[in-house]
Amino acid sequence: MPNPGGQMDKPPAPHTMEIILPKAVRRRINALRKLQVQCAHIEAKFYEEVHELERKYAALYQPLFDKRRDVVSGAVEPTDEECEWQSDREEEEELAEELKEKASLEEAKKEEATAETNPKGIPEFWLAIFKSVDMLSDMLQEHDEPILRHLKDIQVKFSEPGQPMSFTLEFHFEPNGYFNNAVLTKVYKMKSEPDASDPFSFEGPEIIDCEGCQIDWHKGKDVTVKIIKKKQKHKGRGTIRTVTKQIANDSFFNFFNPIKAPPNEELDEDSELTLATDFEIGHFFRERIVPRAVLYFTGEALEDDESFEEEELEEGDEEEQEEEADEDDDEGDLDPKA
Amino acid sequence: MPNPGGQMDKPPAPHTMEIILPKAVRRRINALRKLQVQCAHIEAKFYEEVHELERKYAALYQPLFDKRRDVVSGAVEPTDEECEWQSDREEEEELAEELKEKASLEEAKKEEATAETNPKGIPEFWLAIFKSVDMLSDMLQEHDEPILRHLKDIQVKFSEPGQPMSFTLEFHFEPNGYFNNAVLTKVYKMKSEPDASDPFSFEGPEIIDCEGCQIDWHKGKDVTVKIIKKKQKHKGRGTIRTVTKQIANDSFFNFFNPIKAPPNEELDEDSELTLATDFEIGHFFRERIVPRAVLYFTGEALEDDESFEEEELEEGDEEEQEEEADEDDDEGDLDPKA
Repeated sequence: MPNPGGQMDKPPAPHTMEIILPKAVRRRINALRKLQVQCAHIEAKFYEEVHELERKYAALYQPLFDKRRDVVSGAVEPTDEECEWQSDREEEEELAEELKEKASLEEAKKEEATAETNPKGIPEFWLAIFKSVDMLSDMLQEHDEPILRHLKDIQVKFSEPGQPMSFTLEFHFEPNGYFNNAVLTKVYKMKSEPDASDPFSFEGPEIIDCEGCQIDWHKGKDVTVKIIKKKQKHKGRGTIRTVTKQIANDSFFNFFNPIKAPPNEELDEDSELTLATDFEIGHFFRERIVPRAVLYFTGEALEDDESFEEEELEEGDEEEQEEEADEDDDEGDLDPKA
Repeated sequence: MPNPGGQMDKPPAPHTMEIILPKAVRRRINALRKLQVQCAHIEAKFYEEVHELERKYAALYQPLFDKRRDVVSGAVEPTDEECEWQSDREEEEELAEELKEKASLEEAKKEEATAETNPKGIPEFWLAIFKSVDMLSDMLQEHDEPILRHLKDIQVKFSEPGQPMSFTLEFHFEPNGYFNNAVLTKVYKMKSEPDASDPFSFEGPEIIDCEGCQIDWHKGKDVTVKIIKKKQKHKGRGTIRTVTKQIANDSFFNFFNPIKAPPNEELDEDSELTLATDFEIGHFFRERIVPRAVLYFTGEALEDDESFEEEELEEGDEEEQEEEADEDDDEGDLDPKA
């Protein structure tokens, strides 16, 4: 055993153990290691099947998401039954009384008021979500906001069976004065396969690469670049001329032009981090924003996160919090959608 | 929209929003809320199918786990091929030379040395894991250790199709001087169904209850109780007699006698926490210890956790770490095995 000295917090690192243990035992441990590698390969197949399941369920969610899109855009006005919600019940009942009395008056009021009190659908639904979620508001620039007012829907599409594992984020826009694309896409390629050099680190599918799309900007509307004027003096003649230069500009829409890892080349640390953050954001759109958009619009999702954090803190002593953290890791590890 | 004042970090709480937004829009938001509840119910079905998948894969892992058990117990001596491991290759090659020379000598040596240098299987394999994992060593008492030396295997069994969702931890012991049970069991009952009162908090199956088992201790061997002597003075006669009293004793084996939530009654905060921790431990056995025992024995699993934490820290500024944390949450949320 790696731990002859009795109780201790961490076992010795494997190489230490190699020294402590008799060769015959180390030999058997290697046999267990080889079995563990076989387990990792079975686990990879499990996650592939989970991915299939997700594709199957994506088709079951879609009609609900389409309905959401139509309510948000105003294309569909939900019925009273479709809008009945617990917390409103009492309010409704109170109103019922008044309404009986001055129904006709109400009608009149409504008509004239409609313009400002009854906008189309749910205005700026997606923009409000971008503003309320830190991970997204961090990317958001003021000049992005008027463009995102035209964002109608965000959808997740999974790779077809037999194709390499991937998912695509589709950002659907209504016709707008900024670009011609009706849909902007970001593809995230995934890998569900233990690394030969480090099979034990396998914790399920991971995003390994992403691809954006070309945005067909209207002239002068590209918010991802800015034009700066520069005076140049001619060496010989000393004449001065003004040249304009295009430089990169912060914008959410850079999301569709991600850093590319040059083939067989290491990225520098900054690019590594930028890409890692991009992967996180893609994962977050897929896992949270798209499946439960309304809860991010109302803030209910964020409140859940907060109350969850508070719970953790209430747990009291650090050790338990560490366990909580381990838990999160474990669950993360085994996330079939990761 | 909930956010007329432009950029802000968090959207107003729903009730605030109810005031800001026109009634017609609030109405539509409730329609989206009702769609979201339908999504939660579809999600619940998804997790039931994932549970089915896990049962299917448990059968594929089992032969490897049985092999592990047999190598650990010494019932099976793995072949050289089964024990060949990367990191050993060089070492092996060096040895090869020497061995050729003094093979016979080696043989002789082995024979006499066997006793101490070649114990049976991998001694104290599971006890070493209990000691190396904080969550388990916290429960471990010195008087538990001699008993856990007889722990042969830990297995996870899933509930049958059509049965309520649950999993059972089976602790298999070799015959020992402490109790008659060959197997100690702990059943964890799960629920994969949105809560009617709070459907949006649904994040996949959760453990809702657990059940231990009766340990048939040999006389005087029960480490979960200790006997204390008490002197009692007779009120009338004033005679003094000594009575013995049994009181609870800290032990890992209390794991098989968990707190029971009285029906239709709230647990006090301490019991709540104790039970939550028990659920965490059950989940940890199922998710981590049983599937990758050898990596906790060697410490490789723990090292992964550490290097993972370090990575997070390197990520630098808090915000990114928060996102990391969100990520973990998300993945945790969507853990099919949770």
